[in-house]
Amino acid sequence: MNLQSIDARTGQPHGESWPESTPAEIDAAAAAAAQAADAFAATSAADRAALLRDLAAALEAQRETLVPLADRESGLGPVRLNGELDRTAFQLRGFADVLERGEAHAFVDDAAVAGAPPAGRPRLTRVRVPVGPVAMFSASNFPFAFSVLGGDTASALAAGCPVVVKGHPAHPELSRRTAALAQEAVAARGLPAGVFQFVQGGSVAVGVHLTQAPAIAAVAFTGSFKGGTALAKVAAERPRPIPFYGELGSVNPLVALPAALEQNGPALAETLAGSICLGSGQFCTSPGVIVVMKDAAGDAFVRTLAEKLQALSPHAMLSAGIRGTFDKGVAAWRGHGKLRVLVDGAGDTAPGAAPRPFLAEVQAADFVADHALHEEVFGSAALVVRVASTAEAIDVLRAVGGSLTVTLWGVPAGDAAPGADILDLVRAAARVSGRVLFSGVPTGVAVTAAQQHGGPFPASTAPFTTSVGYAALDRFLRPVALQDAPAWLLARQGVPV
Amino acid sequence: MNLQSIDARTGQPHGESWPESTPAEIDAAAAAAAQAADAFAATSAADRAALLRDLAAALEAQRETLVPLADRESGLGPVRLNGELDRTAFQLRGFADVLERGEAHAFVDDAAVAGAPPAGRPRLTRVRVPVGPVAMFSASNFPFAFSVLGGDTASALAAGCPVVVKGHPAHPELSRRTAALAQEAVAARGLPAGVFQFVQGGSVAVGVHLTQAPAIAAVAFTGSFKGGTALAKVAAERPRPIPFYGELGSVNPLVALPAALEQNGPALAETLAGSICLGSGQFCTSPGVIVVMKDAAGDAFVRTLAEKLQALSPHAMLSAGIRGTFDKGVAAWRGHGKLRVLVDGAGDTAPGAAPRPFLAEVQAADFVADHALHEEVFGSAALVVRVASTAEAIDVLRAVGGSLTVTLWGVPAGDAAPGADILDLVRAAARVSGRVLFSGVPTGVAVTAAQQHGGPFPASTAPFTTSVGYAALDRFLRPVALQDAPAWLLARQGVPV
Repeated sequence: MNLQSIDARTGQPHGESWPESTPAEIDAAAAAAAQAADAFAATSAADRAALLRDLAAALEAQRETLVPLADRESGLGPVRLNGELDRTAFQLRGFADVLERGEAHAFVDDAAVAGAPPAGRPRLTRVRVPVGPVAMFSASNFPFAFSVLGGDTASALAAGCPVVVKGHPAHPELSRRTAALAQEAVAARGLPAGVFQFVQGGSVAVGVHLTQAPAIAAVAFTGSFKGGTALAKVAAERPRPIPFYGELGSVNPLVALPAALEQNGPALAETLAGSICLGSGQFCTSPGVIVVMKDAAGDAFVRTLAEKLQALSPHAMLSAGIRGTFDKGVAAWRGHGKLRVLVDGAGDTAPGAAPRPFLAEVQAADFVADHALHEEVFGSAALVVRVASTAEAIDVLRAVGGSLTVTLWGVPAGDAAPGADILDLVRAAARVSGRVLFSGVPTGVAVTAAQQHGGPFPASTAPFTTSVGYAALDRFLRPVALQDAPAWLLARQGVPV
Repeated sequence: MNLQSIDARTGQPHGESWPESTPAEIDAAAAAAAQAADAFAATSAADRAALLRDLAAALEAQRETLVPLADRESGLGPVRLNGELDRTAFQLRGFADVLERGEAHAFVDDAAVAGAPPAGRPRLTRVRVPVGPVAMFSASNFPFAFSVLGGDTASALAAGCPVVVKGHPAHPELSRRTAALAQEAVAARGLPAGVFQFVQGGSVAVGVHLTQAPAIAAVAFTGSFKGGTALAKVAAERPRPIPFYGELGSVNPLVALPAALEQNGPALAETLAGSICLGSGQFCTSPGVIVVMKDAAGDAFVRTLAEKLQALSPHAMLSAGIRGTFDKGVAAWRGHGKLRVLVDGAGDTAPGAAPRPFLAEVQAADFVADHALHEEVFGSAALVVRVASTAEAIDVLRAVGGSLTVTLWGVPAGDAAPGADILDLVRAAARVSGRVLFSGVPTGVAVTAAQQHGGPFPASTAPFTTSVGYAALDRFLRPVALQDAPAWLLARQGVPV
């Protein structure tokens, strides 16, 4: 399958097409990464921090070239894309900060204790070692922040792991330009080229071949449920299975309690409508299930939400494929006997044309009973689920089961503990998600130490890990206990071995 | 399939047999655990610490009953079993200590930063929540420490997760007595019975049914490669896959460098022979691959090792099934064209009769080339692999690929960094294992914060986690970021929700 840059707003090809990576090229990339692994692991934390800072600076230096390219291939607009480039550079520098503070390579050191077990013991020092070459699958919806030099690449490089990046075929030209910039930065630091390898492909075979490459030690993936579960299976069925860190679909329930709506309903409806349409709904954290009580405040809120949504015009979607999937999902909802359509997203389906937002309402029992309604429709579409009680809201959260986020509006702030029903709701939210928000909207994921971007399946295939924030590093540093380690070994800086 | 207590030394049944748990009983156990999950998660760290201390005390109080029972069913002997009971009680109290120090529930708290992203952000607080009911598969080889009240149960309860323990059919009577003791302790604390549920079975169906139970949120398993990989697949193929923490086979390579042998060869040979035969070789950390240079010191060491091993008499194995697998593994080695047998383990094969140790020698290239030789033979059997250089020793480690431990004898101690070949060897050891020992033998795994009992596949299905030591808790506490959390929520003790 050939790579071809497509203008997202016209659906028209731009420039020449070029072939995807061959199996031999993928093998060579993985082999180069494996060849570089020991030397890269042996670099100091300061050296890797310097590389990350170089990458951030190179992105910024080429902003004038990269942003227009990203805009043409994604249709996301220069404001968003400049902000996303800033975020990507911020993230690279953030991991550099973590390395420079020495946090990534702190030891847990237990002194020897004389005597017989169980109390007596040898000296044990728990260190962390780079897992080895990481295959990194870029996402379509963040051409910078979850793509070639996004969080997965930044955290793997910070950990001392070479990366083999697979660019996303929806922005092939931007991907290869970004990869070239990364390769230059690696070379300029005198590091082996294997530290950053790049492959491209639009066929399933490319991803499968990369995941199966014997030298690959872990996979980081952000993308669709279908692609992610298929590759997770491939990783698990290798002769030697490897960790698969996949961030898949998420419906991000938002529960709007009466307390919030009575106080601030119209403003919240407007904020929510904006979040649903942000980036044409192409955020992994886009709110797709809105839980509202069956009362007057709820009725008013749903009415205003529909009005505000109706007034918004999402921009063109990332690709014809993504648009096609959105149209199919919306059509299924439109034809669903238990849904009442509030805002109909039927829109121009010409290549590159913008979609319309979609909103429908369903009763809690009908939502809970139909598994198909718990699946994400990627784009500016959401379901309002009407509930009679907090207990029913909890049923809805449990039916969803796994989500990157749950947002709870109207939980009392302050020091006074709320009633048992609210505590139960908060607990249910924490059980099914990786992030619980008590204000604001789930779109927007801060890059910080406390961030958790992951959640029970299908939000993540590895819900104990995060793909955003500095804990993302933990995915690539495997603990090893050194028993009675020699002094010279523990005196080594950074990764001891 | 019925459960039947068998005397390990005679192979004779003892007492009546009883039926294994039915699917309905397993479902009921999982449902009871799910029912108890929220209430147990809401207990304070102090309450859970008190439960763990009660369990330790109950084990000790019933020592006079439990140890003879364990001895009859396992043949491991009262000295070892009393020590193992001590270890199990120590471990339960160790997790209680961790809870009381508050370490398990420490927050990562990032203050809000004013301004636009990427630097501006909301307040984010990273907490950890119990994953939910844990299915725990007991091992045969440690009737206390890796069984009903072993490390997996202790760490799951410490985390606030109910457990559904599957007892091992090789010690069914001990298992149900221990379970009864645990159930009494749970009831005495006024906790719901669902906090500790117990099922038994000898058939594959019981394990599969438990792993598929919708209420189960994670699985902890210690056992065979075959059983572990099969159940891991079941866990991954659930409609909602769950974490499977499996500790499977391991050959635990030991590299004896000339420096160690020249100084101390005979004593090391005796120590190693003892480690190979310890518990009749039925340790997950039993050394199964001994890497020795092709030089005079190496020849002398191998000769002494063979003599010492020849003089040892392992005790009866845990069960007829384990003995049968051992005999089959040894027979395959005996008939392998590339192996030179040094100590032949052919022994009495009558029910309950003790096996003989087995040792054979193979050249590095032949070992590396034959994948079958990298597989564990569970019991008192080891392969000596002769290498011409440190580089060949590294090839051997890489061929093994994944192991709980690697032991390196003869790496220089002190402050002076050794040559590049030694550093490469240490690095290779750290890349393929969870614990690298620089002295002593791998049998014996201290319970401490720095311990790492796990390693690349097949040693573990989750090599970033440990099943021994206090970091075992991390398997059952899933991170959740709270965004703009109310004050009352963050003020809650222990698990916030």
